[in-house]
Amino acid sequence: MAEVVEKLTKKSEDPSRWYLDVIRMARLADYGPVRGTFAIRPYGYAIWERMQRDLDDRFKATGHTNAYFPLFIPESYLKKEAEHVEGFNPEVAWVTRAGSEELEEPIAVRPTSETIICDFYRKWIDSYRDLPILINQWSNFVRWEKVTRPFLRTTEVLWQEGHTVHATAEEAREEALRMLGVYRDFYAETAAIPVLTGAKSPSERFAGAVETFTCEALMGDGRALQAATSHDLGQNFARAFDITFLDENQERVYPYQTSWGFSTRAVGALILVHGDDRGLKLPPRLAPTQAVIVPIYRGKSKGAVLEEARKLLSELESPDLRVEADLDEEHSPGWKFNEHEVRGVPVRIELGPKDIEKDQVVLVRRDTGEKEPAGRRDLARRLPELLEEIQENMLRQARSFLEENTRHVESYEQMKETIAEKRGFVVAPWDGTEETEQRIKEETKATIRLLPFEREEGKDPVSGRPGKTAVFARAY
Amino acid sequence: MAEVVEKLTKKSEDPSRWYLDVIRMARLADYGPVRGTFAIRPYGYAIWERMQRDLDDRFKATGHTNAYFPLFIPESYLKKEAEHVEGFNPEVAWVTRAGSEELEEPIAVRPTSETIICDFYRKWIDSYRDLPILINQWSNFVRWEKVTRPFLRTTEVLWQEGHTVHATAEEAREEALRMLGVYRDFYAETAAIPVLTGAKSPSERFAGAVETFTCEALMGDGRALQAATSHDLGQNFARAFDITFLDENQERVYPYQTSWGFSTRAVGALILVHGDDRGLKLPPRLAPTQAVIVPIYRGKSKGAVLEEARKLLSELESPDLRVEADLDEEHSPGWKFNEHEVRGVPVRIELGPKDIEKDQVVLVRRDTGEKEPAGRRDLARRLPELLEEIQENMLRQARSFLEENTRHVESYEQMKETIAEKRGFVVAPWDGTEETEQRIKEETKATIRLLPFEREEGKDPVSGRPGKTAVFARAY
Repeated sequence: MAEVVEKLTKKSEDPSRWYLDVIRMARLADYGPVRGTFAIRPYGYAIWERMQRDLDDRFKATGHTNAYFPLFIPESYLKKEAEHVEGFNPEVAWVTRAGSEELEEPIAVRPTSETIICDFYRKWIDSYRDLPILINQWSNFVRWEKVTRPFLRTTEVLWQEGHTVHATAEEAREEALRMLGVYRDFYAETAAIPVLTGAKSPSERFAGAVETFTCEALMGDGRALQAATSHDLGQNFARAFDITFLDENQERVYPYQTSWGFSTRAVGALILVHGDDRGLKLPPRLAPTQAVIVPIYRGKSKGAVLEEARKLLSELESPDLRVEADLDEEHSPGWKFNEHEVRGVPVRIELGPKDIEKDQVVLVRRDTGEKEPAGRRDLARRLPELLEEIQENMLRQARSFLEENTRHVESYEQMKETIAEKRGFVVAPWDGTEETEQRIKEETKATIRLLPFEREEGKDPVSGRPGKTAVFARAY
Repeated sequence: MAEVVEKLTKKSEDPSRWYLDVIRMARLADYGPVRGTFAIRPYGYAIWERMQRDLDDRFKATGHTNAYFPLFIPESYLKKEAEHVEGFNPEVAWVTRAGSEELEEPIAVRPTSETIICDFYRKWIDSYRDLPILINQWSNFVRWEKVTRPFLRTTEVLWQEGHTVHATAEEAREEALRMLGVYRDFYAETAAIPVLTGAKSPSERFAGAVETFTCEALMGDGRALQAATSHDLGQNFARAFDITFLDENQERVYPYQTSWGFSTRAVGALILVHGDDRGLKLPPRLAPTQAVIVPIYRGKSKGAVLEEARKLLSELESPDLRVEADLDEEHSPGWKFNEHEVRGVPVRIELGPKDIEKDQVVLVRRDTGEKEPAGRRDLARRLPELLEEIQENMLRQARSFLEENTRHVESYEQMKETIAEKRGFVVAPWDGTEETEQRIKEETKATIRLLPFEREEGKDPVSGRPGKTAVFARAY
């Protein structure tokens, strides 16, 4: 049969089309019938499962447990916290009919769960001995988005949302920062994605929060992506939902809350940060398949090579290593190379008649394209080591890219030019006014991504007023 | 402070109230504001997580992968399979408004996913080489129920639903039966719950299925519970959604499908099968805490005993053992015994001053109440062994109960009497007519739970006509 090799758009030529091509060709996701809904296909979901497992272990190691709260929230709940309802109302999907019954009160399909969770916490919290509450939930949420893109912005999203309650403002602040650190570490150690961390400007805060902290990653096209957020909610929700506790002095007071979330958006970040003209490039710790054996044969060597490939697979089978063998007989090795590159498999193991003679294989790295021969007997040692090298190299490359694309600017002209021509993160003092923030947004499409934890004083290049460091970028 | 020990209703006196008491006192779930919705609290969710992990491993071992399909299904999709829409329409929650937009077509919040998944499978399947498709999803579904009860019947349910596609009718039938076996094994090996397996009568089939297979468990009050189902969908959905493939003879034909599901209902089954007048009784393989250390002290021994309890905990810490120490100083040992019995912790480890002297502890089994002293040095060996014994004993007990409460009847009088007075499973020949099935249902409230795989011929006690074995029971 004729081999049809579909061509992948070049990342450098059209990053938006390249992104959608990768998702289709690597079978990560597919479009659903309702606007902005998607199926996450098995290969995409396997990446998400690995992210979930890794983060879940980190949440448990920091003392959190999982629970599950209802998808359905009465309209009146959403309205209790004034800023919250204003922030979310325009995006809510409403259930108004069930079976043959017209509902008296419309029900929101959860856009986020602060309000419904507060309703339970009010019942569960009575004394300081009930605190802290450290609960996370893995679930879906729905927001009616106008413009959608698989993984990055979708009507329904899979995510986790942590919701904690503390006796003091200090503890809540610590928790919000601790979880920001968990996300940052996950991104660096597991996803090989370096992120900047800091606080959002007031206008970019979560609706109802006292402070929003964020992890911002830089995509390959120079645009920023908000990769996870952690909110210090102060007493805003406790007051709105009347959550109180008896403190050690027998006084009834409001507790302090946090919430923090991470979603399938991270799969989008993975594609955009690491992908290249050949497709996806997966860090070994998240790759569903870490290495694929491709047998290379012509004519009568076929039987022997396939047999040897099977043997090699069973030699390498171990709980710590995810290896598969592509024993399909329909396609050529070249077609398979292409296929597994698009899928981002970190290592290809080539095995041909000459390799069998020499009792070796050839290892080909997806991250650099480098080839190295490896003795069969040494492979069980060499392969995990190589995967570690790839993991580290991918983080190093992404870190260099982030550093090269973080630029300090002195004037507004330079700021505009940098954002327009080079994108990336632009660092400049900001005078703290919404006026300046808005002007920059309108004129450059860049927003304040974060205010770093260490900020230097300087002159705001737009207003000329005194300011402190802010990081700007055009964002997804 | 005064110790308030809440009293648990006796299971034998009022099983319905007992059930709700256990759920509240063991903190398994709590009521949400929208009718029939519940939060699954951390302790309940930890049980569910263990069920998930165990089943997920079994699904993967039988070649399945996970994926995720949209929550939102257009009304027109639900209508495509005639029986399906008739079965589910009365229970569907409809989104009719999103943001400020009135939707042109109402959107169903998924009541089950056959229809939406078929829409994707139509796109993904082209040739016999694309088959079989073996996909599972972990998700939530919504059905607008009139009468609800935590875990057993709720508006929103957490579950998994497998959806597979096969080239032949035989393969699909094999798959449906394979997954029925997976559920049966999970129930026996992990949940210590024996189930009967067989086919549903036509009137009890899943809407749109050719055949529905079921696992039926017997609750402590003698009522049956449908614990998991597996459906052979034949070509019904493939025809309705126009899923076709090119077979090996280059002909375009319809494939055969299955679907199979298991939900948080299983947590309800766990409570009802194993629970007793003291509360929950968890099989060690599903228990979030397998053993709890309770220090016993009076007056000045306190410091030394608490210190020793901490030491014991660290001695026992291992990835294969889930042990906690109740070091709370507010409550008496008696209060704690009660608390951990209600929570169903399989083993209590008592540690008092005399035990410390003798370098021992006292192990108390939750399943039998038996006590045994165990040397400290031997504990790391003895405890896992004891947990295994408890796991086996719980299955043995549940199996005896099932056997004792499965009764063959000869006459309709005997059938009515048995159902009314003893409940349990009642075995009798059935003539295969809906008329007889309906009459039994109306007059005894019992339904056909299943038709066993091996059926004997005999005389239907109701109609007097020839029939084959069926198993009847009143059910949850």
